[in-house]
Amino acid sequence: MAIDNVKALTFDVFGTVVNWRDGVARETKTALSPKGYDLDWHGFADKWRACYQPAMEKVRTGERPWVKLDILHRENLLLVLPQFGVEGLSDAEIDDLSHAWRRLDAWPDAIEGLTRLRRKYILATLSNGNIALMANMARHAGLPWDAIVGAEIAQSYKPTPQTYDRSAAALDLPPEQIMMVAAHNSDLLAARSRGFKTAYVDRPLEDGPNKTKDLRAEHDFDVIADSFPELATKLGC
Amino acid sequence: MAIDNVKALTFDVFGTVVNWRDGVARETKTALSPKGYDLDWHGFADKWRACYQPAMEKVRTGERPWVKLDILHRENLLLVLPQFGVEGLSDAEIDDLSHAWRRLDAWPDAIEGLTRLRRKYILATLSNGNIALMANMARHAGLPWDAIVGAEIAQSYKPTPQTYDRSAAALDLPPEQIMMVAAHNSDLLAARSRGFKTAYVDRPLEDGPNKTKDLRAEHDFDVIADSFPELATKLGC
Repeated sequence: MAIDNVKALTFDVFGTVVNWRDGVARETKTALSPKGYDLDWHGFADKWRACYQPAMEKVRTGERPWVKLDILHRENLLLVLPQFGVEGLSDAEIDDLSHAWRRLDAWPDAIEGLTRLRRKYILATLSNGNIALMANMARHAGLPWDAIVGAEIAQSYKPTPQTYDRSAAALDLPPEQIMMVAAHNSDLLAARSRGFKTAYVDRPLEDGPNKTKDLRAEHDFDVIADSFPELATKLGC
Repeated sequence: MAIDNVKALTFDVFGTVVNWRDGVARETKTALSPKGYDLDWHGFADKWRACYQPAMEKVRTGERPWVKLDILHRENLLLVLPQFGVEGLSDAEIDDLSHAWRRLDAWPDAIEGLTRLRRKYILATLSNGNIALMANMARHAGLPWDAIVGAEIAQSYKPTPQTYDRSAAALDLPPEQIMMVAAHNSDLLAARSRGFKTAYVDRPLEDGPNKTKDLRAEHDFDVIADSFPELATKLGC
């Protein structure tokens, strides 16, 4: 089977490995509740996340030069805070809240699955998150990565071809020996177009109760699983 | 104390964390002994290592464009093999032996020290080794890195200023919040010139019985220790 040659698994992180929506809501509440704010915390997380793709798109199109995701998160936070009537935060408070994305928790099944998968495969992030963001998150959430590749080393945001190509080059593996793991159809299609093997993992709760896309694997990916332990089992780990 | 603000430790790896000389000698013997060769295995390791600085220097000076260390190791191997009368290896055998540097063991005290240090600090490699080399070595030797920075992400070899500057930027820390750990005076001087704090760890056996340089800390580095556990103790871990 072609996937027998796979040596490394590369992971989408936000939504696939960690639960960004509950984590950002919690971190925002932790920061702003003591200041007397009582917001729709999940609504705040959704609005913040909604700025994510448009901000990266300006980099993808060349409208602005490369800038890492921690910076985009901070800029987007400054757009969202006034929408919820929040004002008067210090620069240090804004910095700290902008790093909410470094303090997200893994989905409950993720660590067990990653631990099993790591016995057989090199595990790397192939996320739009930058190195410091990924490294701090891994320490917070206990994620056992062997390497952080993805956007920062490629100086480009998924789903551009070079994000996958340069990540494969950094792992020193031909793309057919790498399997991209994601809960997002578009990420997997882009990875597959660069020669990666693909594994879809279902994350029905990523966007909360009103999830409208990535409800299921929409293509014939190499593996389709409903959790990381199931992925591990299907890969013989 | 200024080092109280340190958030991350960055490590030289070859010689400081891992024992390259015995490891390369062992790996070369493992590869070539079954073919009937009986070489001075440590002499082979020394000759291979002797090609290391001149090869990087061509990149530092711009005589050739950026190329990662795995490639330089392979090129240097092709220079050394005929000096020892070794011929007729297949491309796959040369590839595998060139990756001897991915299969080095840690100094006996390193894992204990790193494990203690990691409770308090982000631990990152700041090596001339590329990402795949560092990641595979970490799996082999059990090194608990949080991030791999250094030459490949900087596209430059130590001791150029940009190797340290870009590594600090990737960790998203000002250099004064990073401590460079190395067994080499020159590496620490270069890091200090970019604003890093410095820790010298003595590795008297790095070059075998005839070590002639880096016999001791020759400057007033922030910390001087004779092992990683002593470094951990001196840093309050």
